[in-house]
Amino acid sequence: MFTLGVSDHVMIAHSFADPFFGPAQRLHGATYAVEIEVSTPALGPHRVVMDIGALRAILRGVLETLDYTNLDDHPAFPERTSTTERVAEHIAVLVAKRLTTLPADAAPIGPARLRVRLGESPVAWATFELPLPAP
Amino acid sequence: MFTLGVSDHVMIAHSFADPFFGPAQRLHGATYAVEIEVSTPALGPHRVVMDIGALRAILRGVLETLDYTNLDDHPAFPERTSTTERVAEHIAVLVAKRLTTLPADAAPIGPARLRVRLGESPVAWATFELPLPAP
Amino acid sequence: MFTLGVSDHVMIAHSFADPFFGPAQRLHGATYAVEIEVSTPALGPHRVVMDIGALRAILRGVLETLDYTNLDDHPAFPERTSTTERVAEHIAVLVAKRLTTLPADAAPIGPARLRVRLGESPVAWATFELPLPAP
Amino acid sequence: MFTLGVSDHVMIAHSFADPFFGPAQRLHGATYAVEIEVSTPALGPHRVVMDIGALRAILRGVLETLDYTNLDDHPAFPERTSTTERVAEHIAVLVAKRLTTLPADAAPIGPARLRVRLGESPVAWATFELPLPAP
Amino acid sequence: MFTLGVSDHVMIAHSFADPFFGPAQRLHGATYAVEIEVSTPALGPHRVVMDIGALRAILRGVLETLDYTNLDDHPAFPERTSTTERVAEHIAVLVAKRLTTLPADAAPIGPARLRVRLGESPVAWATFELPLPAP
Amino acid sequence: MFTLGVSDHVMIAHSFADPFFGPAQRLHGATYAVEIEVSTPALGPHRVVMDIGALRAILRGVLETLDYTNLDDHPAFPERTSTTERVAEHIAVLVAKRLTTLPADAAPIGPARLRVRLGESPVAWATFELPLPAP
Repeated sequence: MFTLGVSDHVMIAHSFADPFFGPAQRLHGATYAVEIEVSTPALGPHRVVMDIGALRAILRGVLETLDYTNLDDHPAFPERTSTTERVAEHIAVLVAKRLTTLPADAAPIGPARLRVRLGESPVAWATFELPLPAP
Repeated sequence: MFTLGVSDHVMIAHSFADPFFGPAQRLHGATYAVEIEVSTPALGPHRVVMDIGALRAILRGVLETLDYTNLDDHPAFPERTSTTERVAEHIAVLVAKRLTTLPADAAPIGPARLRVRLGESPVAWATFELPLPAP
Repeated sequence: MFTLGVSDHVMIAHSFADPFFGPAQRLHGATYAVEIEVSTPALGPHRVVMDIGALRAILRGVLETLDYTNLDDHPAFPERTSTTERVAEHIAVLVAKRLTTLPADAAPIGPARLRVRLGESPVAWATFELPLPAP
Repeated sequence: MFTLGVSDHVMIAHSFADPFFGPAQRLHGATYAVEIEVSTPALGPHRVVMDIGALRAILRGVLETLDYTNLDDHPAFPERTSTTERVAEHIAVLVAKRLTTLPADAAPIGPARLRVRLGESPVAWATFELPLPAP
Repeated sequence: MFTLGVSDHVMIAHSFADPFFGPAQRLHGATYAVEIEVSTPALGPHRVVMDIGALRAILRGVLETLDYTNLDDHPAFPERTSTTERVAEHIAVLVAKRLTTLPADAAPIGPARLRVRLGESPVAWATFELPLPAP
Repeated sequence: MFTLGVSDHVMIAHSFADPFFGPAQRLHGATYAVEIEVSTPALGPHRVVMDIGALRAILRGVLETLDYTNLDDHPAFPERTSTTERVAEHIAVLVAKRLTTLPADAAPIGPARLRVRLGESPVAWATFELPLPAP
């Protein structure tokens, strides 16, 4: 199995409605260090998992929908539910959707998987992993 | 699949009885950079893998049974057998046990897995991974 | 010259009033990875720069005044001016003040210096450095 | 499952013939930060995944066949096809071959797996993973 | 004293003519992890060391003159003399020159200093530091 | 000013006699991540700060006098006084001594400085810095 990974980051504000989160109910924020990995059973015609430039551009494009925003206002996280796990899932779903629009010779050979890791601090992180839909 | 990870560290002395270990038969020590990850197929009622504060407290509690000790004296490592692999397994078993005592709304949804990674130096590490018992 | 360093982190929301900051005028946030270093010409009676437990507690105490808050509401940053440089300076001044209250045998030998580094993302950071006042 | 990991690095020149690679068609180079991991279901007689000294020596031995070379001249990468994915695969195959020559008490217990990760920059990496042949 | 730092990277091929360099006389390459820091005694009108976007753009602009090239062909390193120290100095001189062309309200307040650090591998790096000319 | 840096690590046991150190009075251990930097005003005849291979070999040679030992038995740390600061100073003094024995064309041009950094955990470190004696 081959995997290609790239990283980037995003800076957001948010808070949690659920009293479960203690002091994190207050408005605060995070820099998420974002790593994404695409895994495939075989390399494509260019002998890569996929076009690394395309993968970086897709990640940047997805992160730009979140960068410098308050996730409390984002429709994907109703009632202030933007846990790191949920943000990882949200990013993964958007990246997966964009991956399916790539031209065949730039896209990963299936069955492929996507993994998104969000580092929220030097001591805590969350990941979400999903199979990529066939193109 | 969702994963939540947290990290901490522990400082121990130890030595190895087995001549296989060469100079590491001498009394020496290590700082283990400890990372633990809990993976679940779905998020719980608070939209997290589990209570991150509880996970950090469990890890700290387990590490405190080892911190600033000489593992040569520890009953879990009879005859000086505290290899990094064995220490990772020991920590994993203790963390898993404590995870089963969490209240239902703070515990990971099963079937869940636990992975413990010990970095013993900038160039060497070991991990141990096990399924978590159903609560 | 001897230096002792410890690290921690803090998660905040903020925005900037100055149009100079472009998209960062919007409410967003950051995880600051905080490193502080105390430098002295000589070691104290316990052969350390200072009590490392005291240094970590001072840093945590200072960061707790900022953790999980919106810096736009903080009196130290009037008119939304909490640039990373200014937050580093603010933390440094508070840490320096607390260092002067340590008992003589736990405090650094003068003339000492303090340096605070805030990593705001994997690719950007700011530091502030000042001489510590004589106790 | 137990895993043992070690890291090293290698510095190479290369270029790509395929116009797909844009500016990377020009002769350039890379420092690959190389991490390898061996995973086994159980520990061997010395209570380790395998002899860590042997694993480091095998990795170094394999990397020495590439270090300070131009991969454009290497028979494993005909027509300038040394993508990071392909280099990871090449290293994995060579490491796997050497692992099968270890004496039984130093080798990993099967069924074992090998994973090779090449970091080509602070923001991009590739991995290749394969089952180890039974010794 | 305030410091602002940003990082990026560059991938180059090179070799050394001087027999002093042993195997590095052969054509090979490197990924340089590049960190630059600008230090000033005081913050400017926007309460920053300088415009961080401008600093990142300057660094990227300078690195683009080197990225995906063979330094053996570069006039700044005659007779194959592109040691990491010399490349750090070369980048620093180019960054310094571009810093002097910034509009006054985006440039660092003097007397300022610039420091460039090139990580050539996980275990080796070089830096060059110089005072910035007054604008 | 030019700086050359290399890193390595060492694994030791130790304890502290001074009650000031609390639980660290018990026998424990550490992996020290060791970074050393040599700074000079100018490059030597080979256009480097010094021979990087020689610097790595000197560091390794010094660390081998400590690796896999119990510092409580080491004459440099009488009465169990091997604080991280003191170990950094000890390593620095030994490295400095060996640097003065290098042949002129491999040694740093003076006035040179040496800085030794010991990372004792992911969240704590100490450094010692001294001018190098003229050769």
